[in-house]
Amino acid sequence: MDYQRVFADAIDRLHAEGRYRVFIDILRNKGAFPNARCFAGHNGPKPITVWCSNDYLAMGQHPKVITAMEEALHDVGAGSGGTRNIGGNTHYHIDLENELADWHGKEAALLFTSGYVSNDATLSTLGKVLPGCIIFSDELNHASMIAGIRNSGCEKRVFRHNDLAHLEELLAAEDPEAPKLIAFESVYSMEGDVAPIHAICDLADKYNALTYLDEVHAVGMYGPRGGGIADREGAAHRLTIVEGTLAKAIGVMGGYIAADRTIIDVIRSYAPGFIFTTSLSPVLVAGALASIRHLKSSSEERDGQQAAAAMLKAMFREAGLPVMESTTHIVPLMVGDPVKAKRVSDILLAEYGVYVQPINYPTVPRGTERLRFTPGPQHDEAMMRDLTSALLEIWDRIELRLAA
Amino acid sequence: MDYQRVFADAIDRLHAEGRYRVFIDILRNKGAFPNARCFAGHNGPKPITVWCSNDYLAMGQHPKVITAMEEALHDVGAGSGGTRNIGGNTHYHIDLENELADWHGKEAALLFTSGYVSNDATLSTLGKVLPGCIIFSDELNHASMIAGIRNSGCEKRVFRHNDLAHLEELLAAEDPEAPKLIAFESVYSMEGDVAPIHAICDLADKYNALTYLDEVHAVGMYGPRGGGIADREGAAHRLTIVEGTLAKAIGVMGGYIAADRTIIDVIRSYAPGFIFTTSLSPVLVAGALASIRHLKSSSEERDGQQAAAAMLKAMFREAGLPVMESTTHIVPLMVGDPVKAKRVSDILLAEYGVYVQPINYPTVPRGTERLRFTPGPQHDEAMMRDLTSALLEIWDRIELRLAA
Ligand SMILES: Cc1ncc(COP(=O)(O)O)c(C=O)c1O
Ligand SMILES: Cc1ncc(COP(=O)(O)O)c(C=O)c1O
Repeated sequence: MDYQRVFADAIDRLHAEGRYRVFIDILRNKGAFPNARCFAGHNGPKPITVWCSNDYLAMGQHPKVITAMEEALHDVGAGSGGTRNIGGNTHYHIDLENELADWHGKEAALLFTSGYVSNDATLSTLGKVLPGCIIFSDELNHASMIAGIRNSGCEKRVFRHNDLAHLEELLAAEDPEAPKLIAFESVYSMEGDVAPIHAICDLADKYNALTYLDEVHAVGMYGPRGGGIADREGAAHRLTIVEGTLAKAIGVMGGYIAADRTIIDVIRSYAPGFIFTTSLSPVLVAGALASIRHLKSSSEERDGQQAAAAMLKAMFREAGLPVMESTTHIVPLMVGDPVKAKRVSDILLAEYGVYVQPINYPTVPRGTERLRFTPGPQHDEAMMRDLTSALLEIWDRIELRLAA
Repeated sequence: MDYQRVFADAIDRLHAEGRYRVFIDILRNKGAFPNARCFAGHNGPKPITVWCSNDYLAMGQHPKVITAMEEALHDVGAGSGGTRNIGGNTHYHIDLENELADWHGKEAALLFTSGYVSNDATLSTLGKVLPGCIIFSDELNHASMIAGIRNSGCEKRVFRHNDLAHLEELLAAEDPEAPKLIAFESVYSMEGDVAPIHAICDLADKYNALTYLDEVHAVGMYGPRGGGIADREGAAHRLTIVEGTLAKAIGVMGGYIAADRTIIDVIRSYAPGFIFTTSLSPVLVAGALASIRHLKSSSEERDGQQAAAAMLKAMFREAGLPVMESTTHIVPLMVGDPVKAKRVSDILLAEYGVYVQPINYPTVPRGTERLRFTPGPQHDEAMMRDLTSALLEIWDRIELRLAA
């Protein structure tokens, strides 16, 4: 058994497929979003404009967030020092869980160390508490949901993306008495499309299924109070469990679920991924609390983001760039090849000081490699013009196809 | 299918067994370790002394750590805004990985959002990269390793705790050509005993197995540079992978592995739990970096902790309290019943202002419920005398047995 050979082969396969990932080394400049410094391959840091941040609303640099984190740091220190059960349950955690429950119109909420962990821990535990449960999963669901479903040990049925007829066909085929759970997202982050939440809840009602909605790319950004797409569509009360992250529009780090009191108590009491880990740093919790309280009452950031996304999509379309269909703040450009997607990104960084990461397999299916832009309230028209003309020049240089 | 009934039953079972968990609501006071404020069931916060923190060396309140976090907060903001591959790879992350690699005498290191995730993601991915791998796991391994091993889909062989003869018997029984991995901890956190690292590495050499060591309860606290038990015993170079946390003696939050460059590259490139999640907040990374740099050169905190642990063990023993055998900084008192362990803890908190969490199933096996004290450099002799006499009074009051 030659372990080194096996490991080296695993890496060689990535190089051969053109999808070996090199992380670019950056530091953002607080107060100058979307500006940053890039460290790789230069003499000293070089200024860049970031076009692919998931700190969608720049809340990670908001003065209220920074101040709240600074206060917590000085009041209680850096880490919580324990799991939620053993010394790591601070007053901040309780306040934030109450705030999140209110945000999603639920009785209770539960914090996790990340959105990934909230999906993995909750879905895998639900599956174990409900013996014989069958999980119906949208084919484009995020890797963290897929992990949770796999780790639950449940039977899984995959329905075609946002395809209600296919979902119903799969639901109808099962024993009406079997426990069922439909797991899906609101905003699909690599396409920018939105799930038909009410229609899925109708099917859940009809077939007595629970529902699990990942609002990771929507919380803070949609709905009158920023509670997500379910908030916007008045559907929050129909969902069994809503899941979100504190790491994207909220600008900090961490994840959570919101649901009725009993379900939250079950996950709190049975999920190893919740129980056996140090709780979120109170500094992060304090920052998330300030961010959510702000976004509950301010629509300025949301409106700015929507305006920026609309403007960038229009410019790309006008220039003939192959912008994908998206009804949200996400602006994906199809390339369809991992090597070329990386090449566009490399040229943008080296020659234009523009940072946008190429998205390749396993994040998206092979053959659908793309560039994914996330304009926010601070990306202005001049930046968009520069970006569009840079892309046109590169599209021409490396002979990529324009939109039909 | 009555979902509410299933969920309510799951909670009722916990109440019936006396192991329903109520989290106590506290805030630590920075600069006054081990002092804190407790919020539950009182009029206004009540001052308490914390005896069960895993911020073992009070580094979460160290001025260097606080300053570093404050600087990062002002330089780059709250969150990283992306996964490591998509915008979330900051200069801080790279610096900390280099520092960790050096600490453990390895070529490279990789950060995760927690120690739990580092175990789960690494073990499950290793198992997939090495088809047919058999994982040998100490029976007292932490839940996060158990999760990783289960999620790997590999065959598992459980060896009796620290039992070399049993481990060898299991290794010898397998095909010599099959890939093998031995997973164990250095300090077992609920018992306070230590694994025979060199002897386990000898067996790994003999049977051509990889080794995976969880040093979560040892990093920062053992060895001339605080690199852990493997550092103390000069065994780091013999281990394939060393895993640790930034959330205990380091005082912040996050987890990591250290290993050779190829293995780190494999986990970095293949582990969903690493790839598909927002990277650690740069604020946390900056704090951990400052903490580790300090602990690499200062032995004052380690020496203070060892002295405090020795003193508390001696006092407990002298008083006839049933202190468990421990060769480390962990001081467990056996109670052996979940209801009584909780009762001791409740009285300590309500009447003596002492916070120590009862440890029950599933954290320890049923029938071995205990109180687990973690004295640190700031717990002084007077606090220990008060604690010991409080325990003796309660032991008498609720008719618990003293040591034989
Ligand atoms: C749909 C979806 N769910 C969950 C996650 C995980 O959230 P987090 O970054 O907080 O781990 C992500 C992205 O990271 C995501 O895109
Ligand atoms: C042995 C062991 N490994 C791993 C972990 C997980 O580390 P973290 O708290 O950073 O998730 C813990 C405790 O939480 C532990 O006790």
